[in-house]
Amino acid sequence: MSKELGTRAEDFSKWYNELVLKADLAEHSAVRGCMVIKPHGYAIWEKMQQALDKMFKDTGHVNAYFPLFIPKSFFSKEASHVDGFAKECAVVTHYRLTNDADGNIIVDKDAKLEEELIVRPTSETIIWNTYKGWIQSYRDLPILVNQWANVVRWEMRTRLFLRTAEFLWQEGHTAHASAEEAIEETKRMLDVYADFAENFMAVPVIKGVKTPNERFAGALDTYCIEAMLQDGKALQAGTSHFLGQNFAKAFDVKFTNKEGKLDYVWATSWGVSTRLMGALIMSHSDDNGLVLPPKLAPIQVVIVPIYKGEEGLAKMNEVAMPLKKKLEGLGISVKYDNRDTHRPGWKFAEYELKGVPIRIALGERDLANRTVELARRDTLTKETVNLEGIEEKIKSMLEDIQTNLFNRALQRRTELTTKADTWEEFVSLLENKGGFVSAHWDGTPETEQKIKEMTKATIRCIPLNNALEAGKCILTGQPSKERVLFAIAY
Amino acid sequence: MSKELGTRAEDFSKWYNELVLKADLAEHSAVRGCMVIKPHGYAIWEKMQQALDKMFKDTGHVNAYFPLFIPKSFFSKEASHVDGFAKECAVVTHYRLTNDADGNIIVDKDAKLEEELIVRPTSETIIWNTYKGWIQSYRDLPILVNQWANVVRWEMRTRLFLRTAEFLWQEGHTAHASAEEAIEETKRMLDVYADFAENFMAVPVIKGVKTPNERFAGALDTYCIEAMLQDGKALQAGTSHFLGQNFAKAFDVKFTNKEGKLDYVWATSWGVSTRLMGALIMSHSDDNGLVLPPKLAPIQVVIVPIYKGEEGLAKMNEVAMPLKKKLEGLGISVKYDNRDTHRPGWKFAEYELKGVPIRIALGERDLANRTVELARRDTLTKETVNLEGIEEKIKSMLEDIQTNLFNRALQRRTELTTKADTWEEFVSLLENKGGFVSAHWDGTPETEQKIKEMTKATIRCIPLNNALEAGKCILTGQPSKERVLFAIAY
Repeated sequence: MSKELGTRAEDFSKWYNELVLKADLAEHSAVRGCMVIKPHGYAIWEKMQQALDKMFKDTGHVNAYFPLFIPKSFFSKEASHVDGFAKECAVVTHYRLTNDADGNIIVDKDAKLEEELIVRPTSETIIWNTYKGWIQSYRDLPILVNQWANVVRWEMRTRLFLRTAEFLWQEGHTAHASAEEAIEETKRMLDVYADFAENFMAVPVIKGVKTPNERFAGALDTYCIEAMLQDGKALQAGTSHFLGQNFAKAFDVKFTNKEGKLDYVWATSWGVSTRLMGALIMSHSDDNGLVLPPKLAPIQVVIVPIYKGEEGLAKMNEVAMPLKKKLEGLGISVKYDNRDTHRPGWKFAEYELKGVPIRIALGERDLANRTVELARRDTLTKETVNLEGIEEKIKSMLEDIQTNLFNRALQRRTELTTKADTWEEFVSLLENKGGFVSAHWDGTPETEQKIKEMTKATIRCIPLNNALEAGKCILTGQPSKERVLFAIAY
Repeated sequence: MSKELGTRAEDFSKWYNELVLKADLAEHSAVRGCMVIKPHGYAIWEKMQQALDKMFKDTGHVNAYFPLFIPKSFFSKEASHVDGFAKECAVVTHYRLTNDADGNIIVDKDAKLEEELIVRPTSETIIWNTYKGWIQSYRDLPILVNQWANVVRWEMRTRLFLRTAEFLWQEGHTAHASAEEAIEETKRMLDVYADFAENFMAVPVIKGVKTPNERFAGALDTYCIEAMLQDGKALQAGTSHFLGQNFAKAFDVKFTNKEGKLDYVWATSWGVSTRLMGALIMSHSDDNGLVLPPKLAPIQVVIVPIYKGEEGLAKMNEVAMPLKKKLEGLGISVKYDNRDTHRPGWKFAEYELKGVPIRIALGERDLANRTVELARRDTLTKETVNLEGIEEKIKSMLEDIQTNLFNRALQRRTELTTKADTWEEFVSLLENKGGFVSAHWDGTPETEQKIKEMTKATIRCIPLNNALEAGKCILTGQPSKERVLFAIAY
């Protein structure tokens, strides 16, 4: 397989698919819609998990684990939830295989489950069924639990990381004694997600609330963070739901409050998934391959020696190994690639493709001058730098790359956010420019649905702290009190 | 629910079940055979994961993720594997639910899968099917991949942690250019498991090799670590398999070796699971509750103040908070429980039940004398100690507890390992004393099977570096060249 990618300008979608494969991030598996996350992709996901897990724990959450399977009947218990989730999902009907007369493996007809089991598409139902046993009084609240898990939704059109039948995620499920406290939690986790997206992924996000059409099935309010990618499409990067008392009522979870009265428990749930990998890739990468923010790069610095023969290598090792050690002492992850099986040029292209933020090339002339060549992955610029004091230089360069990626993405989003005041402008923007279109909407689900059918654009969110501004709906001309953000989304 | 446990002496099995529930480690879920791992249990599992993951990475492994589902036909490809695994497993046959005429949720008959999918009981097949695309030449080898995942085996008799339909585990799957290298890897990972069991879990283990009867389905050799628990039963705590070329042949995975010839790839796989939680609990805990080795304790030290009124609390805080900080500075995890909702006596019992290694009680008289009361969970002893220099005292006490737990378990195992030279001795030992019985066996699967049927004892392993010793089979009197370890096992 050639390592060359197509260009983004030519065909963004093709470029993305090739990049995911060629940078060894993920690939399709033998099972329809399910992906294999390859070691390089998984290493990035692990960095994401570590950062998020720490943020969850710093905000008082603990991890737990609930069953993969959910009894079919559980889905019927919350009316809107069943519509949203009990549709396309993997159904376990039998628990044994056997051999037929010809020795072929077949499903054992005698091993049919009394009640079918659904592979979890999300865990509200099984978790609230469990919480019933954990909660009696206000003293048992709040429950602040998170789960790292795999989930399955039988998607028909799949795309590596962005939409797969099975994906990895975390789902927080919290239980509270009051609506206020639950709403506070919902917003707190939205802030955690925004903080993570911006400060680790270097992806600026809009925090907002979903319209009823786009709400999570079973939620009273769905908060979200929305990112804008290089091709002008939006991507929902994380959601945090205020579930009210819906699941507590569905699973009969009551508590005795401080006044001694019985009340239903208040709930939130919130999640981000391996979808974030897609947002990360589509936000920063270029025609040469992956570009990673240093905070999520499994290898932050690669040292490539250019040498001849064993003696040459020995000299390189003398410089490179102490340098690696010094950098690691500063908490920087370094790979020294002195393999003789590949040429330096191959290595340069390889680490560029894989998104290593800084490359140090060490040549024989450099060695004589006590210099090295530093190459930045984000700007593709190179400079010759003295070995003396290089550690601090690299440390600040990594910080600079992190900031630069964020600023670049922010600038792009700013350029890709446009106001539209007429239907013609609105349609033209969506067709020719893409990005977020900020426009008035009359607040009805019907209009939102019509706009979606006519343009494919959806309301990504009503931004939090949105400026109030009287106006007229872009489609119906009905009065509106604020603009909302439309976009074509992944 | 009362916090009181039954005693081990009275009914070990009942004591274990109660302990798992009352110490908030895990509970049964609404789905037959599937458990909920509660936050306290999960926190211990996370500590295990962290330590193991670091050991895997230190030995050159990387993580990846493969699909939850395996096409049914994959199981038929490796003959012995199909017998071992394609029996009791969860089978996905449909991918959609729908509503019937009465509005009930039913499985959509029109959404039947062409080929059924099996929820992975282990991932050799799907992974080797994937490796086919990753391996062309010896340059692509070795592949040293590990996966953290959930797996499902439809067990009929389940027990929290020890045997559940769904469990969490890690499975390493490596690919090598030669048999020697693969065998070396198999043994390396066995050593990693033994190191982890002994130095983190404080559970001494016997390293050995399984007899053909007890081998993993599809392996040429299965290496294992075997632990001896308080009730005299053995528990297989981890396995490492040399798979030869079986899976490479089944999935047609060939590589060009250094000589330019095509050959099948050599394989290993190795795994440990949440079963280790069962081994940990049954190894150290007592009639008061859980006992945890400090290296796996989510909270290593708890500080409980005994005070009256707000003023009393303020004084306690002045001492406890800086102490907590100092201990944390030494890398010790500390909880300061100054809640006023529970009495000190309740807290003492609670942290004892949950296995916190050291408890610091802080009374008003102590405060005046600048002393505290230190209580050790492993020995249940208490002592009054000066606050001055207490950090170092605690640090070394934690180390001492870790060592003491190991030594205690080792002594028990020594006492519970007995030689038997006649059938009567053998049966009597198994019936009256339990533990490992070291005895001669004629080396045939038939004899092993007969002994199992007659006594329920299985050959746990042939210990590595076993002393050669001519003898006669305990059952048949046929010649034998070494003793093997029998036991009744979980």
